[in-house]
Amino acid sequence: MKCKRCRRAEAAVELPSHHSAFCPDCFFVFFRRQVTEGIHKLRLLSPEDRVLVCVSGGKDSLVLWDVLMDEGYETEGLYIDLGIDGYSGRSKEKVQAYAASRGKTPIVVELAKEGIPIPEAARCVRMQECSICGTVKRYFFNRVAAERQFTVVATGHNLDDETARLLGNVLHWQRDHLARQHPLLPGADGGLVRKVKPLWRVSEVETAAYGFLKGIDYVTEECPMSEDATSLVYKEALSRIEDRMPGTRIVFYKGFIDPSNPLRKGAEAAAAPEDDAVEDAVGATDADVEERVGTAGACVECGAPTYAETCSYCRLKERVRKARELRAARVAR
Amino acid sequence: MKCKRCRRAEAAVELPSHHSAFCPDCFFVFFRRQVTEGIHKLRLLSPEDRVLVCVSGGKDSLVLWDVLMDEGYETEGLYIDLGIDGYSGRSKEKVQAYAASRGKTPIVVELAKEGIPIPEAARCVRMQECSICGTVKRYFFNRVAAERQFTVVATGHNLDDETARLLGNVLHWQRDHLARQHPLLPGADGGLVRKVKPLWRVSEVETAAYGFLKGIDYVTEECPMSEDATSLVYKEALSRIEDRMPGTRIVFYKGFIDPSNPLRKGAEAAAAPEDDAVEDAVGATDADVEERVGTAGACVECGAPTYAETCSYCRLKERVRKARELRAARVAR
Repeated sequence: MKCKRCRRAEAAVELPSHHSAFCPDCFFVFFRRQVTEGIHKLRLLSPEDRVLVCVSGGKDSLVLWDVLMDEGYETEGLYIDLGIDGYSGRSKEKVQAYAASRGKTPIVVELAKEGIPIPEAARCVRMQECSICGTVKRYFFNRVAAERQFTVVATGHNLDDETARLLGNVLHWQRDHLARQHPLLPGADGGLVRKVKPLWRVSEVETAAYGFLKGIDYVTEECPMSEDATSLVYKEALSRIEDRMPGTRIVFYKGFIDPSNPLRKGAEAAAAPEDDAVEDAVGATDADVEERVGTAGACVECGAPTYAETCSYCRLKERVRKARELRAARVAR
Repeated sequence: MKCKRCRRAEAAVELPSHHSAFCPDCFFVFFRRQVTEGIHKLRLLSPEDRVLVCVSGGKDSLVLWDVLMDEGYETEGLYIDLGIDGYSGRSKEKVQAYAASRGKTPIVVELAKEGIPIPEAARCVRMQECSICGTVKRYFFNRVAAERQFTVVATGHNLDDETARLLGNVLHWQRDHLARQHPLLPGADGGLVRKVKPLWRVSEVETAAYGFLKGIDYVTEECPMSEDATSLVYKEALSRIEDRMPGTRIVFYKGFIDPSNPLRKGAEAAAAPEDDAVEDAVGATDADVEERVGTAGACVECGAPTYAETCSYCRLKERVRKARELRAARVAR
């Protein structure tokens, strides 16, 4: 099959949802246009921004960093070493190798040094790894950005990730989660940095193809902790629907973020606080969320924005510390 | 495994979404309670109602008729012979045999006699069979009910049917369809009879188990025209999610019909007109739908409620008639 854009070269990537097929060079143009249009339509970034790109070593975040650099944005990469045997080391190597190839050195946060490596923390407090990981990563994304004067945090979530999350939220009508799901979460006073998802318009297949054709070397293994993640169930369900009805994902997501969607009413007000800051208050209702906009205080432990006295990260860390002490005391006895 | 209700007999039906398992007798109690609670909670039926039960010969509609009779409702069955070779005849036999076993004779409408058998009509007007079938069935459900003084039309749609439809409507944010999806569609002046779906709380597996254990003989083959129906794609996707997370379907559906759901705002007003009456006006917006409530006129051809001059059934029939004439003229030449 010939490329549908230049009509000369052989097509390398077929995209049923766009009724199209591209040769590598035309696909690069197409992909970058998808990303930049996604950025401009929702005003995710401006040329003055200093962008902290959160890179895991996987395809999505490295591709995101790559495109943002190519588009001329001022960026640095942040890698959080989760402390997962083998996987974390291999991921870090990929991040460092990619960064070096672009003359960069990533910022690295090591959770083991911070006293909260994910696998041990999960065992200590008997929580799902993915849940802890989310809290800890969001905390450091914001803290590093605030400390180092970045104006925005960018993550590599793609259309498949966002629609899987959306499907889960819709199936359970999680109104507060729905109100805070958007490619743009505005910043707020008190050190809450804006968060954006510039890859919201591109699918996982497209991102993988871009990374592969660009020769970006990324970790292909899934995080060993995420095997039972429910998001994979939603992702697979949507994949089957997309296979039969190409384009369903983008219609689903665009229709959701459309301001006329009744589920988005009042969402802009609710979007401001960081996910965890909102979740800090136990049993928060939608009305609470709206009330709390702009009134976040500082965590008494670390100064991070929170609506509670202590932020969820510090409370988690304290629970891990206590569990560890208890275990040490048991061993000593 | 023992029955979780009587704790004596062997369980015959396991229901993960209810964390339960029942012997046949206890399952009958459970199932009938699910249906009657579904009826009472949404006030679908009252003891004074004359219920026209639409029976296809499949498990859902025969089980519905069975339960409604057992619960003491005054019912008659309506069978629409779609004119599909083999399938329609076998379905009619099942309906007649079941009706006879309960001392009933079903009302039968033969689409071949009405001049609009589905397969030929679909060929003539080059439309999807399922789409034509929906229009024609809804028309006769309402017409037979209105002519014979039934107060309500009941169909056998179960939780799997309704959630598959809901998923399709949500994935495409079909606001007007969402506004009109509910187990209760109120009647309206001008001959529009109330429509209810009393099986909305029970799953396909539960309905099949009830039919099987009750010894109801139903057609097990799918309609040969429905092979490509997109609803099956949504149904399958939800089945996979339900398998992994039992209870997802009922949470999804209950959360949707909850009056506090923003997607249901204004839905009660929009629910009144019959689906086809609303769809009669091409390019109708939500605002139009609300405006049109209570102002339906009578079809100039047949007197059925419609917002156009001629109802969608009569327009369809006219298109079929013309296509048939054209074909006859071609053959004659």
